[in-house]
Amino acid sequence: MLTAAPEVVARPILVQKYGGSSLATPVRIKRAAERIASSRRAGYDVVAVVSAMGETTDRLLTLASRVARDPAARELDLLLSTGEGVSAPLVSMALNELGVPAVSLLGFQAGIQTDRRHARARIVGLTPGRIERELAGGRVVVVAGFQGIGEEMEVTTLGRGGSDTTAVAIAVALKAQACEILTDVRGIYTADPHLVPAARLIPRIAYAEILELASAGARVMHPRSVEIAEANGVQLHVRSSFVGAPGTMICSEEVIMEDRNRVRGIAHEEHVARLSVVGVPDRPGIAAAIFTPLAEADIAADVIVQTASHEGVTDMSFTVSRVDAPQAERILQGVAREIGARTVLAQNGLAKVSVVGSGIRGHAGVAATMFGTLSARGINIEMVSTSEIRITCIIHADRVNDAVIALHDAFKL
Amino acid sequence: MLTAAPEVVARPILVQKYGGSSLATPVRIKRAAERIASSRRAGYDVVAVVSAMGETTDRLLTLASRVARDPAARELDLLLSTGEGVSAPLVSMALNELGVPAVSLLGFQAGIQTDRRHARARIVGLTPGRIERELAGGRVVVVAGFQGIGEEMEVTTLGRGGSDTTAVAIAVALKAQACEILTDVRGIYTADPHLVPAARLIPRIAYAEILELASAGARVMHPRSVEIAEANGVQLHVRSSFVGAPGTMICSEEVIMEDRNRVRGIAHEEHVARLSVVGVPDRPGIAAAIFTPLAEADIAADVIVQTASHEGVTDMSFTVSRVDAPQAERILQGVAREIGARTVLAQNGLAKVSVVGSGIRGHAGVAATMFGTLSARGINIEMVSTSEIRITCIIHADRVNDAVIALHDAFKL
Repeated sequence: MLTAAPEVVARPILVQKYGGSSLATPVRIKRAAERIASSRRAGYDVVAVVSAMGETTDRLLTLASRVARDPAARELDLLLSTGEGVSAPLVSMALNELGVPAVSLLGFQAGIQTDRRHARARIVGLTPGRIERELAGGRVVVVAGFQGIGEEMEVTTLGRGGSDTTAVAIAVALKAQACEILTDVRGIYTADPHLVPAARLIPRIAYAEILELASAGARVMHPRSVEIAEANGVQLHVRSSFVGAPGTMICSEEVIMEDRNRVRGIAHEEHVARLSVVGVPDRPGIAAAIFTPLAEADIAADVIVQTASHEGVTDMSFTVSRVDAPQAERILQGVAREIGARTVLAQNGLAKVSVVGSGIRGHAGVAATMFGTLSARGINIEMVSTSEIRITCIIHADRVNDAVIALHDAFKL
Repeated sequence: MLTAAPEVVARPILVQKYGGSSLATPVRIKRAAERIASSRRAGYDVVAVVSAMGETTDRLLTLASRVARDPAARELDLLLSTGEGVSAPLVSMALNELGVPAVSLLGFQAGIQTDRRHARARIVGLTPGRIERELAGGRVVVVAGFQGIGEEMEVTTLGRGGSDTTAVAIAVALKAQACEILTDVRGIYTADPHLVPAARLIPRIAYAEILELASAGARVMHPRSVEIAEANGVQLHVRSSFVGAPGTMICSEEVIMEDRNRVRGIAHEEHVARLSVVGVPDRPGIAAAIFTPLAEADIAADVIVQTASHEGVTDMSFTVSRVDAPQAERILQGVAREIGARTVLAQNGLAKVSVVGSGIRGHAGVAATMFGTLSARGINIEMVSTSEIRITCIIHADRVNDAVIALHDAFKL
């Protein structure tokens, strides 16, 4: 027999983040609401963090480009933040329609405080009072992801994938039992399933491995959100919003000791260009002279290789995203004149392929297997870069599919 | 010779409100920005209050209707407020593109405080600190109209035409020199120009006349904004955003004494229905019994006529908007049973036609002319209602065009 409880018993809190593709249409929004409702019936207090619907952000950027060539970041933030301002109340309405009390909150209402770095703000604090009051009132709280509020009530956005960060920050602040990242894929795979039909869903993966996969080009979670989750011990569950099956748990290495694996997955990234500053006088401060102006232009240099110095000169090569290559080349030509380097070379049509896994640590055999596999397929390695748990090779872009398939096979994923 | 002024001299402040049709496309947004820029070159500090672009509000309402049958007003407010959240930064970007420093502010950033009546909030306070600081910094301030912030940081909207109210409230708070309402027509006309090709632009009109025109069905300014302007002595200038010509000044009756006119304009409204409660026992409290449940259902009863009591019973007739008629009829059938009235009659296909003007006051001849004109055209008058400066006749909808043209002619407008 059910009787009314004389006191409110705190229910476990579940934070669910819904990506834009999971909210692209009214039908999908209703489906997301049904999923939230069923989590609530399962006994959870739910905070749903939502991204903008489908292609909203692209549509808003197009509008902006039609009124200004180079819109101010502050104004773009205000504009883009309306995307989640639309999806959040729609999800809340769809929940109400199912008989589930719900309330939607924009970033500033949810207490998401950030610094003032527009377009890539960082969350500096979270005042969860309003969210907690709404949960205590029996409501699902739908929070607009990706946005926050800086000093002087300035609206900010958190950059690409920022809704993941919002979700993790809320999970930390509320001491949530779990944080689910609901998306249009079933989880994280051993390689891109579009390339490798045999790719397998990874049931458990360590934070560090996800960070390496992300930096190696895999379209997974926003690195910043993974860092916050790791620092606060929040387990993340990346899973499909469309099916009920479990996806990929992201947790600490200790938790997944038992299924430790040398290589967890293969990541790749096309559209890479290599730039080389040739004949650089080898003296202190040269690297800074090359990379500071690139950083100021917001160009990320990735794989960096400096050849051994020979007769007082050296070569410095690194990769950048293809779209950044022309601007990087212009900047470097100026730098080369200043520092007295011989010339600047640029090469397009390259790609990155990486193997990632905690088990790589201390296993020289992984690198050997990787190089041998590529060599056996006649794939030339242009550059190599490694971290403790990642090995990356730069190869020609037209061989990247072969390389990923061969490596996936070689490491028996 | 120009020299740098040692101190900042306060420039006069101009508030300009741009309606949705003036911002419907990127091209129109750029044109609005050019107009703002030229007002600035003319020596004004400008605050531009903007509505949502074109059909945005309808698009958002359609989205809402696809996820919920009856969305909560609070969630709708959040959703609809994104419309101005898009237009405001776009106007600001377009100004920057023209070399004009600008900043856009949402309602809560601009200090627009309201009560918490969602969908029809009233402005209860305005903290202009941020707007003043931005103006002092040499920037045009673009404010998202229609929206404000209630207690507990709840986003509210001001109801239809709310951006007019935002503009007037800001003009009051900043002691602006002028408040321009920029729209897609040249100003306020003596009658609807679509109906009466001879309709003339009214150069000056009194606040009270505008209020009567609005209540009589003319699509002019939001009545609430006119009331605030009148109470604070703010002159309003309704004019086209597309051409430079002067439009209609809305000001106090004293200012326009010299061009006092018996009739200022003709307004009309189609889609009117009449409801009659027949055989009502004539005792105190009957009117309240009839109109209270209508008010609770948010149905505005307009022209109300009670026939003289005869043998202790009376008839009560009034008009409502056609869309409200079915619901009103249902409510009245319940009321009729309770109060012992004989029956409820409903009639569709009616229209309102009104003559409005300060000069009507004390001129019985205006009513005589109106009735005579309609009678001469064979147009039957179903009901009559008057205020000090307005006479309204309810007629058949299929004669409304004839009536407006005939009256416009009869009063030599």
